[in-house]
Amino acid sequence: MRQPGIIFDLDGTLVDSVYQHVAAWHSALLANGIAAAQWRIHRAIGMSGRLFLPKLLKDEGHCTSKPLIGRLERAHDDRFNVMIRQVIPLPGALQLLRQLKRRPVPFAIATSGDAKQTKRLLGRIVGLPSCPVITANEVASAKPAPDLFELAAGRLQKDPTECFVVGDSIWDVLAGRRMKASVVAVRTGGFDGHELQESGAYRVYADLLELSESLGQLGFPPESSK
Amino acid sequence: MRQPGIIFDLDGTLVDSVYQHVAAWHSALLANGIAAAQWRIHRAIGMSGRLFLPKLLKDEGHCTSKPLIGRLERAHDDRFNVMIRQVIPLPGALQLLRQLKRRPVPFAIATSGDAKQTKRLLGRIVGLPSCPVITANEVASAKPAPDLFELAAGRLQKDPTECFVVGDSIWDVLAGRRMKASVVAVRTGGFDGHELQESGAYRVYADLLELSESLGQLGFPPESSK
Repeated sequence: MRQPGIIFDLDGTLVDSVYQHVAAWHSALLANGIAAAQWRIHRAIGMSGRLFLPKLLKDEGHCTSKPLIGRLERAHDDRFNVMIRQVIPLPGALQLLRQLKRRPVPFAIATSGDAKQTKRLLGRIVGLPSCPVITANEVASAKPAPDLFELAAGRLQKDPTECFVVGDSIWDVLAGRRMKASVVAVRTGGFDGHELQESGAYRVYADLLELSESLGQLGFPPESSK
Repeated sequence: MRQPGIIFDLDGTLVDSVYQHVAAWHSALLANGIAAAQWRIHRAIGMSGRLFLPKLLKDEGHCTSKPLIGRLERAHDDRFNVMIRQVIPLPGALQLLRQLKRRPVPFAIATSGDAKQTKRLLGRIVGLPSCPVITANEVASAKPAPDLFELAAGRLQKDPTECFVVGDSIWDVLAGRRMKASVVAVRTGGFDGHELQESGAYRVYADLLELSESLGQLGFPPESSK
């Protein structure tokens, strides 16, 4: 068995940004006269706007049109960009990535965000070790399509089945399973731990601190023995 | 069997304010140099600050002191009060309360919020039918202590065991069960539906729209037959 690679989601997994995304979408929708409940917006985070907005708009009794989707996406991005300054790394993120670099275990970051937003979010993790970063700009379909994770596996020179995917949302679990990776879920995006498990997560941890302490459960040898 | 009374929680049950509470606490904590993950703050919403802050501060490696708790509570309130203008009623809230008024089924609102904040939140539900409203100002202990719900049952002239409690958080379920009410949970606060069920909810619905359509499951006769 070769050394597995690890592919990390960004929002809600490495940085604490899911609630800012909820607030940005909620405000963008309200500004366009659409009153969507925040818990329903929350459950869609991790997908791109053009994937979840059509159903959300239909449920709220609004017609979907390409110009409206575009307007809402721009309104979200404007608001989220202002909120990025409140985004901080999630507990254990930096320590885990540094530990993987030391061992070494190859890892990459794959996110549904665009290149510009991703660059700003990664800037919030001071001291982030270098690694391949795949953004929505490089693929035709965002999660739950497996394209982002497949590209990341390739960048790590790993077969997709050799990889662990680490993410916080149902969409990460579904996308990772479609490429036959083992998906480890963390609860730091505020998603239902039971639902993550039921979606087929290989293992669910509270956060990256718990994951770091549990690398043995995933088959990684203790760091000191290397 | 007498006609049951229904006691509603406010935040996350009748109005879509849980995510604003998360943002207000997150910002209040950051302003005091405390970086708490938002999903952990989310899970504490529904309790009063003085109940959840000591554990949260300890987990983040900060000492708890009465002045710090007071400062954080005031910082939260200042921020939340600004955010109230983005708070809107949750889908089905107004329709359900109006239907109960018509039948008539006696109902009350019981919230961990203080009187001033509650008045402003209730003002966001335009056309709210009159009913008893119990706030944290009237009890010594907020949820998960049963005091608020017990006071509400008394105001409805019902024995606590004759009441349904409707809430969105684990703390509503625990408080309602302590007074031996049947607790109906809704998922509109963004809480884990499985965890609400496991905490002992009598029934879990997506939102008040689904609850309204399911009153027969709770033993209320169809409205038209009355």
